[in-house]
Amino acid sequence: MNSPEWQKIEVLADRKYPVYLGTSLEELGAYLPALPEKVEHILIISHQKVLDLYGGRLMKGLGDYRVNLLVVPAGEAEKSLERLSQLTTAALGYGADRKTLVIALGGGVIGDLAGFFASVFMRGVRLIQVPTTLLAQVDSSIGGKVAVNHPAGKNILGAFHPPQAVWTDFTTLESLPWLEVENGLAESIKHALIADPGLFNFFETQVDSIKQRDPLIWRTMVTRSSSVKVKIVSQDEREQGIRGLLNLGHSFGHALETEMNYRGVTHGQGVSIGIVAAAHLAGAKGFISLAEVERIKQLLRNYGLPIAIPGQNPQALLQRMQADKKNQGGRKILILPQGIGNAVISQDCTDNEILAAWQQVISG
Amino acid sequence: MNSPEWQKIEVLADRKYPVYLGTSLEELGAYLPALPEKVEHILIISHQKVLDLYGGRLMKGLGDYRVNLLVVPAGEAEKSLERLSQLTTAALGYGADRKTLVIALGGGVIGDLAGFFASVFMRGVRLIQVPTTLLAQVDSSIGGKVAVNHPAGKNILGAFHPPQAVWTDFTTLESLPWLEVENGLAESIKHALIADPGLFNFFETQVDSIKQRDPLIWRTMVTRSSSVKVKIVSQDEREQGIRGLLNLGHSFGHALETEMNYRGVTHGQGVSIGIVAAAHLAGAKGFISLAEVERIKQLLRNYGLPIAIPGQNPQALLQRMQADKKNQGGRKILILPQGIGNAVISQDCTDNEILAAWQQVISG
Repeated sequence: MNSPEWQKIEVLADRKYPVYLGTSLEELGAYLPALPEKVEHILIISHQKVLDLYGGRLMKGLGDYRVNLLVVPAGEAEKSLERLSQLTTAALGYGADRKTLVIALGGGVIGDLAGFFASVFMRGVRLIQVPTTLLAQVDSSIGGKVAVNHPAGKNILGAFHPPQAVWTDFTTLESLPWLEVENGLAESIKHALIADPGLFNFFETQVDSIKQRDPLIWRTMVTRSSSVKVKIVSQDEREQGIRGLLNLGHSFGHALETEMNYRGVTHGQGVSIGIVAAAHLAGAKGFISLAEVERIKQLLRNYGLPIAIPGQNPQALLQRMQADKKNQGGRKILILPQGIGNAVISQDCTDNEILAAWQQVISG
Repeated sequence: MNSPEWQKIEVLADRKYPVYLGTSLEELGAYLPALPEKVEHILIISHQKVLDLYGGRLMKGLGDYRVNLLVVPAGEAEKSLERLSQLTTAALGYGADRKTLVIALGGGVIGDLAGFFASVFMRGVRLIQVPTTLLAQVDSSIGGKVAVNHPAGKNILGAFHPPQAVWTDFTTLESLPWLEVENGLAESIKHALIADPGLFNFFETQVDSIKQRDPLIWRTMVTRSSSVKVKIVSQDEREQGIRGLLNLGHSFGHALETEMNYRGVTHGQGVSIGIVAAAHLAGAKGFISLAEVERIKQLLRNYGLPIAIPGQNPQALLQRMQADKKNQGGRKILILPQGIGNAVISQDCTDNEILAAWQQVISG
């Protein structure tokens, strides 16, 4: 993954911003003078482990700036109002002001938390997303959605806060633990399932190369999967329509994560289960064939992603879906695959149909 | 204040929205179908005392909607992340979703808190401001700024979340306690001082009528003062320039409020002291004459607003100004009057000059 080529694609939203794919951490500093407003003070928000790995490389380019580090413990539980408050205290202690630039260096949790902090600190400061995980690179760093969790549900408090830029260095993926890779693969497979049948086929035929982290194959996978996200959010930044498709698997997955209190299930595993549940429901409604349901399950299984959750309580999981942000007027809004590479928003799923889908992933 | 005339002025910001002046609470329900998206569920966020006075009148027009009340205790301390979290729990319990409309019924605290809740709940839901105090009617309900406080400073966490509409019923001012009237007068006098010399003169000549709450005089005062705010935020919604002038008196005032932990000083009293401190500083820099400083102090005194704070520690107050959101790169940005009806943004005030201004309001 040390190929020197990099490319820039643009998110064409309310405010246009670039996504740099395959750049290097060291070069970010040299890019900052290209921002419309001058940068003086930088807050890097990250985990200690990520700083140990990449902090030095990133700092190499930032010698001209006043930089402070805000270190956040690992874990989804850190996406909280309490952590937001602590970041605020620390930021003010470092003299952060409205001109401060926040750099989110890390995975999805850091991107969401640092992004939400940037969106509300002094009513909003600038943000650059530097995603270091597969999930963050193909998905969460793109599109401006930021949030923290609430005891009653995931990502319940948040904002749309598009970054100044997304800065993606593929080399950070080389050392990524496989559990983290899984998180990204689940979202990448979801992108393929909703919008790119060719990418779905690529995942089916490149299982071994992807598992062995072949650099060229990964470059293709990350670029193509990011492009699905860029294309969709460029059409619908505020999720009034088509962007909703990206939630495929997530209403089920969030319910499972919340029910398990974010323990014993990763986000990728939740999404994988959620995709399977959505596939079963789509199968029951005739949107996809049973063969396609099996094809989806087989692909997830090939990458070691779970397709069953024995022992869970379907009623409790259904109850957890009440707080989903997509719900409207008490009706549950679900995204269902319609064939491979296409998906639809379904507003008329009954609780019984949803329960039956949960039953199928519980019984496996 | 029961004149049937009402008027509509428009805030011409990123998204245009109307400010209805002199309408009635009962009529809001009949206005809701004019919103671009249908309203089904409404959350009214208010204080119990305000609901006792005006809840019935507002509800009269809302019979066609599903309405829930979220009651918040009184006091600036309620503008907190803790209260935001509690509102979130309660809102989800009532089945609130992305289509929910939040109505902020009350004064500045309710507008800020309910507005910030609306800005982050599920990444943003619709908001209508129904200001019931003079301060909220002439100032805080207009312009989209919402926020909560943080132990380290006032309004440190917030957003720009313009409402769908501002709905102002002058009759709610009839029973307003005089301390609340003072809060609004301080902001109205500030509007006059920065942008409307005619209004400043009106305040000088109408002291008795205003103190006696003459309905016609109040109608003029509220309309003219609101119009200053509408005009300024229409030119600069995001406070990149001219909107900053509205902060005259507030850097000093917020420091005083924070130093006193929001006890024993109202917002209006803080702003009044802040205006006097800014006037002294402007006088020391030659932006206004000493006669003008006296004229400003005399006007505030005539309305019972404080112009001195004996016993405070100037160094501690200076220290509190470090966390001000307007600061840039460690420099304090202050708004100073330049004559009556005009103001400027000053970036070069030294700590010694600021200390001297504090000294003058401390020694009275």
